[in-house]
Amino acid sequence: MRASVLVRPKQGILDPQGDAVQRSLQKLGFDVSSARVGRVIDIELDAHDAGEARSSIERMCADLLANPLIESVEIHVDSS
Amino acid sequence: MRASVLVRPKQGILDPQGDAVQRSLQKLGFDVSSARVGRVIDIELDAHDAGEARSSIERMCADLLANPLIESVEIHVDSS
Repeated sequence: MRASVLVRPKQGILDPQGDAVQRSLQKLGFDVSSARVGRVIDIELDAHDAGEARSSIERMCADLLANPLIESVEIHVDSS
Repeated sequence: MRASVLVRPKQGILDPQGDAVQRSLQKLGFDVSSARVGRVIDIELDAHDAGEARSSIERMCADLLANPLIESVEIHVDSS
């Protein structure tokens, strides 16, 4: 089963990489008022159904993939 | 207008960060057969409609956000 995990810096958390992207886009002439950079992690895992996959990925996030103090997580399980 | 840009390493392109994530998840006991790591870039931009936003973001990707030789891009415009 496939899943995508989006890990983003929480609101209020400094994001120097996003600030650099915003400044660079503005210098290139784009009208961008904010840019934030996070990670997308695509995972193929063994699970019987989407619910099992989701709960497994929630544990992966807690154990390794994200820091809940400063990052928010969005999980998409592709059940096809 | 808000948009999210997902930038991923193309199939066949080496992804050492993804390999490290996969190995670490396996060591933690998760049954993960593949992991790939990319970037998510959340952008707030000035645009009259979703189409204009999308074409503007396509130019941002070509100019700065992604390397089309080794990365694929997925654009989501939040028109709400």
